[in-house]
Amino acid sequence: MTVIYKKVALIGLGLIAGSLAHAIRRAGLAEVISGYARSEETRDIAREIGLCDVVCDSAQDAVKDADLVILAVPVGAMAAVAKEIGPHLKAGATLSDVGSVKASVIKNVSPFVPENVHFIPAHPLAGTEHSGPRSGFAELFDHRWCILVPVENTDAAALANLCSFWEAVGSNVEVMDAQHHDLVLAVTSHAPHLIAYTMVGVADDLRRVTDKEVINFSAAGFRDFTRIAASDPTMWRDVFLNNKEATLEILGRFTEELFDLQRAIRSGDGDYLHDYFTRTRAIRRGIIEAGQDTDAPNFGRNLTKES
Amino acid sequence: MTVIYKKVALIGLGLIAGSLAHAIRRAGLAEVISGYARSEETRDIAREIGLCDVVCDSAQDAVKDADLVILAVPVGAMAAVAKEIGPHLKAGATLSDVGSVKASVIKNVSPFVPENVHFIPAHPLAGTEHSGPRSGFAELFDHRWCILVPVENTDAAALANLCSFWEAVGSNVEVMDAQHHDLVLAVTSHAPHLIAYTMVGVADDLRRVTDKEVINFSAAGFRDFTRIAASDPTMWRDVFLNNKEATLEILGRFTEELFDLQRAIRSGDGDYLHDYFTRTRAIRRGIIEAGQDTDAPNFGRNLTKES
Repeated sequence: MTVIYKKVALIGLGLIAGSLAHAIRRAGLAEVISGYARSEETRDIAREIGLCDVVCDSAQDAVKDADLVILAVPVGAMAAVAKEIGPHLKAGATLSDVGSVKASVIKNVSPFVPENVHFIPAHPLAGTEHSGPRSGFAELFDHRWCILVPVENTDAAALANLCSFWEAVGSNVEVMDAQHHDLVLAVTSHAPHLIAYTMVGVADDLRRVTDKEVINFSAAGFRDFTRIAASDPTMWRDVFLNNKEATLEILGRFTEELFDLQRAIRSGDGDYLHDYFTRTRAIRRGIIEAGQDTDAPNFGRNLTKES
Repeated sequence: MTVIYKKVALIGLGLIAGSLAHAIRRAGLAEVISGYARSEETRDIAREIGLCDVVCDSAQDAVKDADLVILAVPVGAMAAVAKEIGPHLKAGATLSDVGSVKASVIKNVSPFVPENVHFIPAHPLAGTEHSGPRSGFAELFDHRWCILVPVENTDAAALANLCSFWEAVGSNVEVMDAQHHDLVLAVTSHAPHLIAYTMVGVADDLRRVTDKEVINFSAAGFRDFTRIAASDPTMWRDVFLNNKEATLEILGRFTEELFDLQRAIRSGDGDYLHDYFTRTRAIRRGIIEAGQDTDAPNFGRNLTKES
């Protein structure tokens, strides 16, 4: 594999940056990977497990001479980091990010990007419910999509390099504008996460149904919600606060539809329910055919002892 | 393993009955397994794959001389089947079912149970998004809970035998009354399923977000919803129509809570969101410790090519 960027700097050393470090090494994409995390504990762990070639004690040290800098911090922390590193970015470098919201990141980060730096926002659609520097693995991006969201007048060569980079860590790449990205993600990720958090919260509140029952009898449906609702609280707080409009719009649509189905249940309209449930089954088939999920029953987890 | 019931009759030959047939054989729990399904196609497949020792062309033939009869049909079909087989049940036999709702099954089936037959409703909390006679497998019930819901004056020996039977196919067994069962399941299964169906339906409706985008970019959150929303439409229609009150009550609670979180997003109350998301994370931990789910990231499915 060809080295695309001699030095890559990862700012924030959680699940995504950690997985990137592993995937960059797997593909031999960089000569040096530097890293920085705000928390001293995270930096110590990263050093202990050799996550990067060098872990720096400041973001500005980490980005020094880097050809690619990736901001992998919660969306709400992007502006502060950009402000800190802006003056220290190398001329001609590419600055990117992995934030789950794009319009707000572009708005908040752009003012701090020097004219001689290529700012190309990105969002890899990959993750797990685990977080922190130990949670990364090289295969996280394999066959997943990475959406690049170039701003106005983006340099074509710089964009092509970043495309190659994401493909080389295993992703499929798509280019999209920020507004559209934020709406698509509100549907496929942000609204479902809020809904899962809500349902798990409701179960937690119900006093007649004890904790033990909710936990033991969670086999069908609920336990999948709990996986989603175990995602990183800081990351998700920032996603909702920064993709407010699209998320609230989709949740509004969701509530209308839910009320419609509730009415069908109340009035005993079995045909309506059956038709609805038949239609949703087809989408699943499409996702499996697109290689975005497994067809194994229960994701394959039912076949062995699980604990 | 000791034979508990010499002859077991399975009425309905879908995922649950099929898995039971495999699990009964794995444990050597019966000398003969008979089966019946309303659809001729299902009966033909069952014969072709040797699902039971004998597949009958009528329910009354299948239950003849059976020591245990298990109704494994959609909840809405239980009464008709019970009416048909009632006069043909062996004296002293146990009649059970696997319906996801218990109060309505008890109400609808009880009138057709002869006095000399032990009617002991049951609900194994196990399943996958697949259905039909080919979808069963022996391990489906391993480490999962089966809830027994005995009616008034249930014979203690008959109940003990049914407990032993479910334990022998791999389950943990719990005894509960019907009202409580239906409320617990509304929280852990019925409401989550309706919510997943709804969210997938919303995505399907959204014209600005094309099908291909919803499908390709479904990695985070949404694809787990699509798995749940791929469950059998007939089964789920009947669940909602037969557990109307508890499901609507929980959905009411859910909507209140959702509105609360929407308000927090709208007003930018990050602390509220962060606290909420931290609390829901703890429930996940409990489910994993109880052996009811895997701790592998993304249920382990991210680690290999998925298609």
